[in-house]
Parts: sequence; C-alpha cells; structure tokens
Amino acid sequence: MNQVIELLNSHRSIRKFTYQPVAQEIINTLVQAGQAAATSSFIQACTVIQVNDSNKRSQLMECSGGQAYVGEAPVFLVLCADMQRNKLACEMNDAEINSGYTEQFITATVDVGLFAQNLTVAAESLGLGAVYIGGIRNQIARVADLLELPDMVYPVFGICLGYPDQNPEVKPRLPVEVVLKQDSYNDSNDQQTIAEYDKSVSDYYRTRTGGNKDMTWSEQMSGMLTKEARPHMKAFLKDRGFLLK
Amino acid sequence: MNQVIELLNSHRSIRKFTYQPVAQEIINTLVQAGQAAATSSFIQACTVIQVNDSNKRSQLMECSGGQAYVGEAPVFLVLCADMQRNKLACEMNDAEINSGYTEQFITATVDVGLFAQNLTVAAESLGLGAVYIGGIRNQIARVADLLELPDMVYPVFGICLGYPDQNPEVKPRLPVEVVLKQDSYNDSNDQQTIAEYDKSVSDYYRTRTGGNKDMTWSEQMSGMLTKEARPHMKAFLKDRGFLLK
Repeated sequence: MNQVIELLNSHRSIRKFTYQPVAQEIINTLVQAGQAAATSSFIQACTVIQVNDSNKRSQLMECSGGQAYVGEAPVFLVLCADMQRNKLACEMNDAEINSGYTEQFITATVDVGLFAQNLTVAAESLGLGAVYIGGIRNQIARVADLLELPDMVYPVFGICLGYPDQNPEVKPRLPVEVVLKQDSYNDSNDQQTIAEYDKSVSDYYRTRTGGNKDMTWSEQMSGMLTKEARPHMKAFLKDRGFLLK
Repeated sequence: MNQVIELLNSHRSIRKFTYQPVAQEIINTLVQAGQAAATSSFIQACTVIQVNDSNKRSQLMECSGGQAYVGEAPVFLVLCADMQRNKLACEMNDAEINSGYTEQFITATVDVGLFAQNLTVAAESLGLGAVYIGGIRNQIARVADLLELPDMVYPVFGICLGYPDQNPEVKPRLPVEVVLKQDSYNDSNDQQTIAEYDKSVSDYYRTRTGGNKDMTWSEQMSGMLTKEARPHMKAFLKDRGFLLK
C-alpha cells in the first residue's frame, strides 16, 4: 500500500466546509486533472459548469432537495455529459453528427464518471473535501434551463468542494469477495456475505449517530429501491436528444 | 501541484505489457480502492469479473474487434453495472425492487465510472499500466452470456492491466477554457479554441507516427460520429431489464 492508495481508501463525503475560499487556479488544476482521465475514443465529453452566482446556487440547492451545502460550499461544480461539442466538431468539418444512440449516452456518461473521480482525487490530495450531488437530477430540466445547457448536454451530478470542517468516518464497503468474481458471475455465497456485512453497516450507523440510526445495508437498499426513481428522467433525456435509438 | 496530481496528469493508455504477472493480492487491493470511491446513495453497483480462463479471454478479444492486448494482458477485468445485487438486498428484506428506471441506469453506470477510475489510479500508482476497453460492447450480448451475467447486470467496459512494455506520450486534451464554464453554458469562443487545439492534436499524431497519421481532433470526431454507434445497445439493455421506464 502506498500513499496514493491510502488517499483513495480514506475517502468520505464532506458536507461541511470552512469559509476558506478555493483559488480559481486550484479549480483549474482540478479540472485539468479530470481531463487527464481516459476518454472513450477521445470524445472528451465532460463539460464542467462552475456555479458562482448566488441566486443560481440557491435554486440548485432547491433542485437538490434543500441540501444546504449545495448553496454554502465554497465551490459548486455541475458535471455535464456533453455531445454538443462533438456536434460542433462535426460541423467544423461540414459533417452531420449521427446522434441519439444509447451507446453515445453510455460513453458520455462514463466519460463524466472517470473525469469526476480524477477531479475528486486531485481535490482530496490538496486537502479539500468533496461530496457528489446526484440530487440535482431531482429537477433536472430546471437545472438544465438554469445553466442554459443546449440540447445534447445533460447535467449528471454536482460536486461540492471546500476545506473540510468535519471529519466523518470512512463508511464500510461490501466485502471484496462479493464485488470481485472469477471468470463468471457466481453469486451463490453473496446472500450470506451480505448478511454478515449488514451487521458492520448497522454498527457503523449506530456508532456514528450515537444509537439514533440503526440500519443494515440491505434494509437501506430495500427502503430506497422499492420506490419510484426520478421517473421524469427518460422523457427529459429524450427531449434533449439522448436515448432516441 | 503534488505527486498525486502529477500521477493523474501522466496517464496514457498502455496496450503492451511485460510478461511479469500481477499478484492476486494486488488485484484485490485495486478492487478495494475502486470500492472506496463515492457511490450513489450507497448502492455499490459495480461488480468486477476477473477473466483468467484463456478460452474466455480469446472470445473477449474477438468481441472487442481483435484487440490483441485483451487476450494477452496479464490481467483483464470486466466492470459491470450491477442492480442484481440490490435486487437480492431487497429480497433479503422481503421487498420487491422497483427496477427498470432510466435513473437507476445512470446511477449504476456512474458508480462503475467512479469505481473504475479509482482502480486505474491505484494501478498506476503501483507502476502498472492500463487501458479501458469499450470494445467489449461491440458484442455485448455475447460478453454477457460468456460471463454468465444475470438480468440487471451489464458489462460497461473492460480494463487491461500489467506492467508497461511501452512508454507512449500523454495525448493533449482540450484547453481548459472550453471544458470549464462559468455559471452557464456559453460556447461562443469554443469553435476558435477548438481550431487552435486541432493543430496540437495533429502535431501529436504526426510526431507519434513519424508523419504517417495526421488528423485533427475535430476531424477524428466527425469521422467517427457520423456513423452508427453500436445500434444494438438499446434493445440489449431493455432485454436485460434496464431503461424500461
């Protein structure tokens, strides 16, 4: 184990930040580290909107279900999957993009994931803390309008950044033997391993909340995944030129 | 700039590896570093299939359009977006998952992206090289059958790993001012900036190939994106329980 892997393994979401501002030069460095990640067939499909305007920040906080740190964090970035820039690249060569493929939705979304994780790792290496905000997809059309996103660009998630003013524990992950399989998907032991893991998650929550929250991982999943999941998403994406074929 | 950011910025795909094997202990360490990344609402939706079987490796190479390193790399991992494990978690609590939402497809795919980039960064920090293999989606149904993936699991991409036996240059990325925007999506200067960037990409290819390849970024995009993009993808994903609503 080296220092980089120790850094990766020490990740926890930070939702409370000091007032210390983050220099624009640092933000640029983080974005460039994001760009250095692999990109599918060189499409470079991630665009970052840095939101400084306080009115927009308040509205994004509302869109995310009122998570105060979306409004308050020193830095708030919206990471977008962007095929509009590729359309422009085609136009620069008098070519017409053949867009709307589900495959392109995957490549652009994966590009954003790889980019974002590099950005977050770079941030944490500089002592910053971060939390991903999938909540902006609660009102995704409003977010897209607010940031004036053109067709073929969708906001995947936000990231809050700043210097940490809290020090939460690392949350225990699934045992590696459930997540890493050899040669084929064999889940015959998974239920038993998950049952054991459930106990460690319940311990984690009890310790963290002084006994107020006591929930296993599988209980948490079943509480959440039996509900509707942002049912507006498919229509929004089609309206913006994604997932058409 | 620190050593972590230097590591991130030095990324280039490695497609040629020495024969030096990679210990299983290291692979487990890399997967655990992947797991340490943020995960949307704690769903932990990434499953890794490590493919050792030489017959399966040959078939995966065929599926990926004959990229030799898919067969030859010391390690080949297939990273899957997995909602099957969450279905199991629901069943363990006598609950029925409400699956098929496009939103869940996004969260699971993003989980894989964040996980994979942590895994790759950890690998590179140990002196390993890596290349992502989106090509496994060329014949995605065959890959899913080969790895016996159940419904609600799809193979997003592969990763080849090993000790580098080549030392390619870092590929120049888009200027940060195109990728990072302030408060809204304003692309009024993008065409001009991309035209300048095009020259540096063309220089990169000329230098790398001794003059044999000379192509700008926008030419490369327009050559690729005017064609069909894996048109089987949507039907495959629906068949496996994704993107139904």
